[in-house]
Amino acid sequence: MQSQSKRHPLSGFPEWLPPQRMIEQYVLDRLRTTFELYGFAPLETRAVEPLDQLLRKGETSNEVYVLRRLQAGNDPADDALGLHFDLTVPFARYVLENAGKLQFPFRRYQIQKAWRGERPQEGRYREFLQADIDVVDRDALPFHYEVEIPLIIGDALGSLPIPQIRIQVNNRKLCQGFYIGLGIPDPEAALRAVDKSDKISPAAVADLLVQTAGATEAQAKACLALAEISTEDTSFVDAVRALGVTDPLLDEGLDELVRIVEAAREHNPGLLVADLRIARGLDYYTGTVYETRLVGYERFGSICSGGRYDNLATSGSDRYPGVGISVGVSRMLGLLFGAGALSASRSVPTCVLVAVPDEETRTESDRVAAALRARGIPTEVSPSAAKFGKQIRYAERRGIPYVWFPGTEGSAGEVKDIRSGDQVIADAAAWTPPDDDLRVTVTGSAQTGLSG
Amino acid sequence: MQSQSKRHPLSGFPEWLPPQRMIEQYVLDRLRTTFELYGFAPLETRAVEPLDQLLRKGETSNEVYVLRRLQAGNDPADDALGLHFDLTVPFARYVLENAGKLQFPFRRYQIQKAWRGERPQEGRYREFLQADIDVVDRDALPFHYEVEIPLIIGDALGSLPIPQIRIQVNNRKLCQGFYIGLGIPDPEAALRAVDKSDKISPAAVADLLVQTAGATEAQAKACLALAEISTEDTSFVDAVRALGVTDPLLDEGLDELVRIVEAAREHNPGLLVADLRIARGLDYYTGTVYETRLVGYERFGSICSGGRYDNLATSGSDRYPGVGISVGVSRMLGLLFGAGALSASRSVPTCVLVAVPDEETRTESDRVAAALRARGIPTEVSPSAAKFGKQIRYAERRGIPYVWFPGTEGSAGEVKDIRSGDQVIADAAAWTPPDDDLRVTVTGSAQTGLSG
Repeated sequence: MQSQSKRHPLSGFPEWLPPQRMIEQYVLDRLRTTFELYGFAPLETRAVEPLDQLLRKGETSNEVYVLRRLQAGNDPADDALGLHFDLTVPFARYVLENAGKLQFPFRRYQIQKAWRGERPQEGRYREFLQADIDVVDRDALPFHYEVEIPLIIGDALGSLPIPQIRIQVNNRKLCQGFYIGLGIPDPEAALRAVDKSDKISPAAVADLLVQTAGATEAQAKACLALAEISTEDTSFVDAVRALGVTDPLLDEGLDELVRIVEAAREHNPGLLVADLRIARGLDYYTGTVYETRLVGYERFGSICSGGRYDNLATSGSDRYPGVGISVGVSRMLGLLFGAGALSASRSVPTCVLVAVPDEETRTESDRVAAALRARGIPTEVSPSAAKFGKQIRYAERRGIPYVWFPGTEGSAGEVKDIRSGDQVIADAAAWTPPDDDLRVTVTGSAQTGLSG
Repeated sequence: MQSQSKRHPLSGFPEWLPPQRMIEQYVLDRLRTTFELYGFAPLETRAVEPLDQLLRKGETSNEVYVLRRLQAGNDPADDALGLHFDLTVPFARYVLENAGKLQFPFRRYQIQKAWRGERPQEGRYREFLQADIDVVDRDALPFHYEVEIPLIIGDALGSLPIPQIRIQVNNRKLCQGFYIGLGIPDPEAALRAVDKSDKISPAAVADLLVQTAGATEAQAKACLALAEISTEDTSFVDAVRALGVTDPLLDEGLDELVRIVEAAREHNPGLLVADLRIARGLDYYTGTVYETRLVGYERFGSICSGGRYDNLATSGSDRYPGVGISVGVSRMLGLLFGAGALSASRSVPTCVLVAVPDEETRTESDRVAAALRARGIPTEVSPSAAKFGKQIRYAERRGIPYVWFPGTEGSAGEVKDIRSGDQVIADAAAWTPPDDDLRVTVTGSAQTGLSG
């Protein structure tokens, strides 16, 4: 066997240390619980898609990782495969492929890695974990699912030990109708220009509107005025009306956005804001669009985005309109870890370490461990029959809160809480740990909806 | 937006339908619960490794998928990355890379996809899910971890709704010591020859022993005699002794195997058999080796394999010996699905569908759903205010057991078990479903340890 040299991390391919992975697992469990409470079924798709499928969205072509078998030659089809860069495109393909076997409306959650060959930077990875929910229906999708999605995300992210969230909602029909009513020649280009508001100045957006969307300077000014509207209640309607533009599509978008804002105010006041600057770069959205920011960490950008899409999964005359949203789990956690904002009360699942007085009686310690595990208490047995002080220090280093000392023939054992030093006589068939919950908390200056 | 054409499945990249994925998720949850009960912490590694790392085991080089960014050029380092083909090699690399930050002995479980470019066949995929546990220590790893691993797997697989399992255990020292004591020139080659017993006839194995390991015909015959020994108790010792070979390494191997067989007989009688034919092809194993077969489905081959390795993670003078085992989740489920051996009582997480009398009162139905979810009952609201008969049929098709009919102003609602037809008056703030557990069962002629 050859020896193996030390390795350095690969830029853009994050790997958490065990305590961080405990937090990630805890976050995924909570997300999943909420998704299942809303009736979303678990689903996974393969990691690869045919390359032509991945390249349908031209703007992402430079991000795709292409696969090749090292010893190829006999199967040229392999050369046409790439790793998926999101979970929406594979899901749309899965729906088309399995439409005859699915029940519609079809609700699924999907928690998987995705890959993009982008240059890595803070919170931008080449390999990252996404947690998506989508609802798709055959032919037509009722609007009420666009109302439901942000409420689910509010519950899901609200159950996490992260800073409070704010969901920003807009509607493509509202913007497009406004641009049409305004008389802008290329409303699609106008959307893409406004979408850059995060990255460039208002003046630069105005220039773009003139250059790419064919807007006059007055029209560009009106677009910027629309994008500045942001209200927690339905007063955005009056603010839009005050701009003096009328269009049937604009009315439809306003009505839809009002329904979402009203439902969110009943379900979860303060969760949602109508923010008419939100456009989403991807051109497949056709109705409501969502972004989500962490309060106090707005600099991180959106950590959960999505929207309504009518034309992503179509095949001939078959249409499967949908609405969905994607939590950027790696992105969110990477940024919060980087800011030192999260900490966990335990770094291992183990609750009890059973000490081993000497190797001859290891079997006795194994029996105590088996009795504790049989009642659901995560337990490990000491690696060696070292002095008890050393075994206790092992538990401390691992972050295990209790150490169990087996009794000698016939006598009961004792269990020590090594955080408090308290030690009590205990029976492995009956004892339960007074305090064994994993707690994950937001530390530092971060505010939180909940400390888990 | 372009329309999207229908797709066919990619051979070797399995995707489950939602009811199958429910079963897979259930299986993963149970595996995880057992692993955590034994104090294993969750871990994930990146999907990619440097190619030179993946190619250290020459025999697998033809299986590796190499990555390339579609628009490469500025970062040649990317060209040296491939997808991992198992979880052991990445884990060994992770341990070396993070040794200064880990506590030893380090126990982790890892449930992730792996990829191999092999020609697909029944139960052999190009993308597959593995569930691994490993314990590694610095410098030296106590033998008792080799005893613990099969007990954990017995508990983990025994908690699943699958046929009974049988773990076959052998010890590399036993075989190697036997070959050395016998005077075979190349004991390593002898191991590899015996490892082919599953695929070729005893006569062909004997030929291989002569040709590749330099054995005489008498020696080859003795090797075959050793490989035929298989006992549930420790009587294999006498059977080996009867072959008349002596060697210190053989004695060590016999002693270790005895300890494992005895511990397993106390913990879980019938779980384990000492089977001296088991060799494992990979050359990094140095002590105990494990394979696992489903009783009644032996034709599937091993669905869970592993062993002790002393030299997988080494760097200069640093050594991290380990022992681990890997459950082939996709392989096991793919074969059982293919045999029609598993079925689930539910195909969605949803327990209750709240009916919608008309769209004007959807908000009332939403409130009922929120009240049920607040008490942990997975609930969805009917997609449309169709006639109640149609809403009930929707629940039937989805596999949702209960339909809730909201009361009109002030009056209580009613809930119907659509399997029995029973309908009762109920309060959303208090009602709990009498029967909402997901049950997964082994069907057909398969015997099972447990119906989940």
